[in-house]
Amino acid sequence: MKIGIAGVGITKFGELWGKSLEDLIIDAANQALIDSKLDKSKIDALFIGNMLYGKLSNQDHLGAFAASLLGINVPAFRIEAACASGGLAVHLAIQSILAGSYENVLVIGAEKMTDYPSSEISLGLMGAGSEEERHAGLTFPGLYALMAKAHIQKYGTTKEQLAATAVKNHYHASLNSNAQYPFEISIEKVLKSGSIVEPLTLLDSSPITDGAAAIILSKSVKPDQVYIAASAVSSDNLNLSSRETLTELKATQIAAKKAYTQAKVSPSDIDLAEVHDCFTIAEILAMEDLGFCKKGQGGKFIEQGTTRLGGKLPVNTSGGLKACGHPVGATGVKQILEIAQQLKGLSGKRQVKKASVGLTQNVGGTGATSVVHILKI
Amino acid sequence: MKIGIAGVGITKFGELWGKSLEDLIIDAANQALIDSKLDKSKIDALFIGNMLYGKLSNQDHLGAFAASLLGINVPAFRIEAACASGGLAVHLAIQSILAGSYENVLVIGAEKMTDYPSSEISLGLMGAGSEEERHAGLTFPGLYALMAKAHIQKYGTTKEQLAATAVKNHYHASLNSNAQYPFEISIEKVLKSGSIVEPLTLLDSSPITDGAAAIILSKSVKPDQVYIAASAVSSDNLNLSSRETLTELKATQIAAKKAYTQAKVSPSDIDLAEVHDCFTIAEILAMEDLGFCKKGQGGKFIEQGTTRLGGKLPVNTSGGLKACGHPVGATGVKQILEIAQQLKGLSGKRQVKKASVGLTQNVGGTGATSVVHILKI
Repeated sequence: MKIGIAGVGITKFGELWGKSLEDLIIDAANQALIDSKLDKSKIDALFIGNMLYGKLSNQDHLGAFAASLLGINVPAFRIEAACASGGLAVHLAIQSILAGSYENVLVIGAEKMTDYPSSEISLGLMGAGSEEERHAGLTFPGLYALMAKAHIQKYGTTKEQLAATAVKNHYHASLNSNAQYPFEISIEKVLKSGSIVEPLTLLDSSPITDGAAAIILSKSVKPDQVYIAASAVSSDNLNLSSRETLTELKATQIAAKKAYTQAKVSPSDIDLAEVHDCFTIAEILAMEDLGFCKKGQGGKFIEQGTTRLGGKLPVNTSGGLKACGHPVGATGVKQILEIAQQLKGLSGKRQVKKASVGLTQNVGGTGATSVVHILKI
Repeated sequence: MKIGIAGVGITKFGELWGKSLEDLIIDAANQALIDSKLDKSKIDALFIGNMLYGKLSNQDHLGAFAASLLGINVPAFRIEAACASGGLAVHLAIQSILAGSYENVLVIGAEKMTDYPSSEISLGLMGAGSEEERHAGLTFPGLYALMAKAHIQKYGTTKEQLAATAVKNHYHASLNSNAQYPFEISIEKVLKSGSIVEPLTLLDSSPITDGAAAIILSKSVKPDQVYIAASAVSSDNLNLSSRETLTELKATQIAAKKAYTQAKVSPSDIDLAEVHDCFTIAEILAMEDLGFCKKGQGGKFIEQGTTRLGGKLPVNTSGGLKACGHPVGATGVKQILEIAQQLKGLSGKRQVKKASVGLTQNVGGTGATSVVHILKI
């Protein structure tokens, strides 16, 4: 597979009270168009990943909505898979190009979250889980806390290792002017930041964020252009209680395996990755399920600095969901953008040296959807 | 393009108060699996079209949700484009097969609508339109009434012609045991059924419906199997007020033109069609925009019986949205199923004779999305 990334665009991530979803979509899309040097008349289709706007603002039909905003009446599709909406939008855009139906496709991930009461957001996000979980009063921090507890019990993972993940990602975000929290934190600060659900603290958790990211995918790959070498998706039982184990995301394992085969690489070939750290435990699981370290060793792997900028495999150089922010529908698209910029050497202070193969992992809910992309230059 | 339809399944359409969305999904999908004679382990991906379940029941992430229900942890995607959600799910499933990524793909369209207060449904459905329209207090009957008035003023279309559309579709539904309203009505009854928004009456309008439909699309086309010869999508401005005209759906015109080219047929080659008659005026517009008759002549075309069973071009033999029912996410999938069954000669009392080419047209909102499929045997 070889689908070129012709252009990228991203808004600031954060509490953007002066910006509407419309503003965010237009800003990210226009930046991607400018970056690609393509006139908008060259865009053949539009895919948009978004989870919550229908529920929160009663605006559905976001494909035609975004196409209207941009003045391009092209085939337009809204894809939703909770927090994996952006990643799946990219996957399906790729399918449509491989099918020969469209040549240049604009993919937008966008979410507007901070204008609503946090209770409404928490409830809305639980739409990613199962009815049984909602009726049991579970929240996403609660579900991920169950996974963290199981990992701690089974593998001896420590709270300090969880905290080290957040500390690393805040360090990376401190080098990213688009990040929601562009400042450093310490292990001590994470541990003392207040328990959300034991063992997860406030600073183990990704925030509520507004933001949008856009990429233009192309049938043709120009010299020196980053391209998508693999795109693979898997699903798992929606209910955490109906899974075999709490310490593995099978969907990530399956999607990763498929992606490595497609791209003809192995985990050791990956130079950098953006993974779905909605909570610190999720990044630890990702390290293991993506094959970067052995099962159970994710905490140590991160603690020893391997995934910090300058380490062997920098992970979440954008700051990740934790510190760059997590506008849910935008996240999967932003991950691709971060890797694309890194591979082109455009990441400034947070540039990873000599990187030619990057990976993204975007998760829906507690892992009922997982999508893995591999990019090369 | 040649994508086989390996199996189909459908639930009863109607007020199914004893059935949950889960029940409907499982019922339609299992029927399609049985019809295809494929074991569920042969399904490589799942696409589901649904508009309202996140908003009404706080259940999003319907791809993984449906995959979990069916016990198939395959790549799973929820596609939403208001009332065109089902048609776009079919279009994207086709792309994924043409891309070579998946061989057998299950496409489900499903909607559960009757458990909620009608005010909530009316409001929820307006998510398909623009914020400007919602703030102006417009509803879908209101928007389509504007189109109907414009058509009456410009072309002399009569209320009797609008009514004739509903009468025909009820006649067809009277021959369909899955239909929500399997009984005949008269022109007089439509005209006297009470005004919703002048000139549209209650019986000019499609109902609120529960239901699901499923099809299995395959890379391989077996002898005597119906196949998809064209799949084309277009979008238009979301806002009715920002369109050039109220009497044409440009998105349908563009999608139809592309589809005819793909399938190498012209409108006169079409033996039967299922079109998006959310209101009677929509079917009149569809006749014109699909090229079955001249612009402005749709009312007469229907009134003279051309599109009635036994006529030259039977339209909406299922009963259409009007009388078979309109579970919004299911509609686009059900249309394909109806044509597939007709082309195979399995439609019993409503069988169209000597049909080998059929067309479907599925619309989102007031025409901001339109998707046209052409099927052949």
